[in-house]
Amino acid sequence: MGITTPEAKACDFVLFGTKGDLARRKLLPSLYQLDKAELLNDETKVIGVAKDDFTQEAFQELVNKALHEFVKEELCAKTVSRFLARCHYIGTNFTESEGYQEFHDILEPEKRVMVSYFATPPAIFGDICRCLNEQNLIHHDSRVVLEKPIGYDLASSKVINDNVSEFFNENQIYRIDHYLGKETVQNLIALRFANSLFASKWDNRTIDHVQITVAEEVGIEGRWGYFDKAGQMRDMIQNHLLQVLTLVAMDPPVNLDSDSIRDEKVKVLKSLRPINSDNIYENTVRGQYSTGFLQGRSVPGYLEEEGANTQSNAETFVALRIDIDNWRWAGVPFYLRSGKRMPSKSSEIVVYFKNPPHNLYRSSYRNLPPNKLTIRLQPHEGVEIQMMNKVPGLEQKQRLQTTKLDLSFSDTFKNERIADAYERLLLEAMLGNQALFVRRDEVEQAWTWVDGIIQAWEESGEKPKPYPAGSWGPVASVALIAKDGRSWDE
Amino acid sequence: MGITTPEAKACDFVLFGTKGDLARRKLLPSLYQLDKAELLNDETKVIGVAKDDFTQEAFQELVNKALHEFVKEELCAKTVSRFLARCHYIGTNFTESEGYQEFHDILEPEKRVMVSYFATPPAIFGDICRCLNEQNLIHHDSRVVLEKPIGYDLASSKVINDNVSEFFNENQIYRIDHYLGKETVQNLIALRFANSLFASKWDNRTIDHVQITVAEEVGIEGRWGYFDKAGQMRDMIQNHLLQVLTLVAMDPPVNLDSDSIRDEKVKVLKSLRPINSDNIYENTVRGQYSTGFLQGRSVPGYLEEEGANTQSNAETFVALRIDIDNWRWAGVPFYLRSGKRMPSKSSEIVVYFKNPPHNLYRSSYRNLPPNKLTIRLQPHEGVEIQMMNKVPGLEQKQRLQTTKLDLSFSDTFKNERIADAYERLLLEAMLGNQALFVRRDEVEQAWTWVDGIIQAWEESGEKPKPYPAGSWGPVASVALIAKDGRSWDE
Repeated sequence: MGITTPEAKACDFVLFGTKGDLARRKLLPSLYQLDKAELLNDETKVIGVAKDDFTQEAFQELVNKALHEFVKEELCAKTVSRFLARCHYIGTNFTESEGYQEFHDILEPEKRVMVSYFATPPAIFGDICRCLNEQNLIHHDSRVVLEKPIGYDLASSKVINDNVSEFFNENQIYRIDHYLGKETVQNLIALRFANSLFASKWDNRTIDHVQITVAEEVGIEGRWGYFDKAGQMRDMIQNHLLQVLTLVAMDPPVNLDSDSIRDEKVKVLKSLRPINSDNIYENTVRGQYSTGFLQGRSVPGYLEEEGANTQSNAETFVALRIDIDNWRWAGVPFYLRSGKRMPSKSSEIVVYFKNPPHNLYRSSYRNLPPNKLTIRLQPHEGVEIQMMNKVPGLEQKQRLQTTKLDLSFSDTFKNERIADAYERLLLEAMLGNQALFVRRDEVEQAWTWVDGIIQAWEESGEKPKPYPAGSWGPVASVALIAKDGRSWDE
Repeated sequence: MGITTPEAKACDFVLFGTKGDLARRKLLPSLYQLDKAELLNDETKVIGVAKDDFTQEAFQELVNKALHEFVKEELCAKTVSRFLARCHYIGTNFTESEGYQEFHDILEPEKRVMVSYFATPPAIFGDICRCLNEQNLIHHDSRVVLEKPIGYDLASSKVINDNVSEFFNENQIYRIDHYLGKETVQNLIALRFANSLFASKWDNRTIDHVQITVAEEVGIEGRWGYFDKAGQMRDMIQNHLLQVLTLVAMDPPVNLDSDSIRDEKVKVLKSLRPINSDNIYENTVRGQYSTGFLQGRSVPGYLEEEGANTQSNAETFVALRIDIDNWRWAGVPFYLRSGKRMPSKSSEIVVYFKNPPHNLYRSSYRNLPPNKLTIRLQPHEGVEIQMMNKVPGLEQKQRLQTTKLDLSFSDTFKNERIADAYERLLLEAMLGNQALFVRRDEVEQAWTWVDGIIQAWEESGEKPKPYPAGSWGPVASVALIAKDGRSWDE
């Protein structure tokens, strides 16, 4: 068993939607990795649920195939066979409770905690809960893990949360935002609160502004129908980028307990200055990719993708200027941008520090480049500080140069495998630790703020601005930050 | 000619003591490098002065040999012949002015500025000045470069400075401390004042303490007689370490002009809390190396070196706790140490930042390791920041690790040759820029402070504490800093 990690209690890990993409690509491989790391209790079972009629053998073959396809490193035969032995299958229509009777043959609630993972459309979360309840399968210690999207707006998220909370208390509900499972996102807390170099100057006296970028290279291949109803704002900003923003901006929590951290995060969300019809043009840019070139090949525009409605107004790019109206951040804008069909896949947080109050080098530099702290979430997870140093040399006029102090996670922690976000999150759910999951008030506060923007966009009737696939979004995104005398990190 | 550097005015560079070690090892090679970098005016002459009778050819041969022996990289034949053509020799007794008549044949004061470099014992600085004066060789724009030691204490330094200042104004006098020519020492100013990350927190609110270490691997081979009269305090602390300390501690200068910087440096020296009989034991440690092992070989103790007086009380190691009594540094000790026969040659400044006001990680770390900024002067010049990061992994108890963000000068500035300190200083003297030279009030303020310590040591009558060659000094040096709850950087 793992040395420094308390072994997870024995669980019945019930995976609804076990044949879906998420389960095969992420969840089953992550469970395998936990098993390999000896972080699963010997008694833990994995119970796949889907509507097809499957034999146990057929299901184990499906799991085996998923591992072969999606586990990146070479498989450990011993772990594979141990893992497959944990796997059980139940075929049932999710919305009819008769099919749930079979659970009684497998689950042993007095021995194992039931952790249900709903990797299904949220519309049926309530039905699953109802069926579990009708079969008396829910106990006080049962847990449920909800995959996004939690709704489409505040109203629909309330419906979903109400449906689930009819049967589970908030402390039994684990809402996934897989960004919270990323190593560098977790490291944000250590970076901010275990380093006085940053802890003591993380506010509007020393920070000029913050940029958060999540750029995707992919377009909408194959999931046009789903995405078009959401758009980039709901797909990426409402959850991932706002979650990252809260961790960058929150006040120090009382301690590292789940609710202490989430109390601080929700305070940030409550402090976001509303964006509505009055200020929508200064603070937001929507974009939609058109035909372009990426990595040397021509790619279709959003409206030319398979299955596209050529009249769609869905945005595939959003840039925002966000003000946080509290004592810490008054006057420090946070610029967020996220888009599909960007030139490269990259997620990063860049904290720009204010310039020194006086420029001793003004004869050489009218404006000194500021210090900045870059936290790379992907690819090449790491931390980087940009500084000014004198270029060695005998010139009379001191030549300065921006130089980088670099900490690459993969170089520094060579012997530590960087776990996938889902491994961390599944483990936490099995351990009963909610810190890395999103509390209901966070979800609702985020929707409240996002709904205001979407409503203002709809009222404006404007179409998203086109940008060529393979570019960094519409020109208006540059203007959004340039009008404040700043520019996006490059 | 150099592109960004104004070409030095044409000079008659007169090198007194041209056959000595310093001239051959450092000064002639540095002049060659400046010539190669096209930073010497075409008309500049190099005039070697020593007491031997030499032909021009014999002198040029001596220079040629020095270049072959002491220039590290391959010589450029074209530069060598151009440089040798600049070289002239005058043989004279330094203290008799008749011998100086020959200067009139070579110097052309209306065309070239005379820059005299006194690489001779300081006892004859005055004599040289007198002779130059008797021969009417000193003009209002003549300059004189003085090699250390400038005296043995305040009184003797005053005699030397008085002797020279009878013939030269302070703005004509360039006192060498070659540490000021080192790239990383010059970079200190850029680091402090061009980086808001440090500029805004360089004081007692955020810095816990500072350590300055200059460790030499060499012993006193061959120069026992000279060294024994001085000791490590006069040989290293009074000049190099105190100079580095002033650059770390000074307030922001009005601008980067010579006197603006030196005004701030002298303010630091005036603020050093005196160390005398009252507080000598808490604040100082003297050591003397005994027989030991270094790099796997046995080496003799100080008292067993060739020519040693076996009763000598000279110290070869000094550790100090220094308080700077001003607004910026009240409560922030500076720990200095310097010794011979240390385990390795290394010079560094380490700035320890205060811990965060509250430790969120106290369940794992009773004391969080502090952030620290290390400025390596040698070897491997560079800058490094120690931070805490979360170790990637699935442990429940967040494991933190101190990690280093590193900036190596030689890696970062691959295409820039790191110039020797003397190249920079000779160039500055020829350009007439005094910023990197030590002003008389600095020298005297440093001696005043150092004299107090030496006097207290003498009054105590204690011998220096022995330490084995190849160790980091006497155990008392560890205790000096340990009693404050701190430890030397390792």
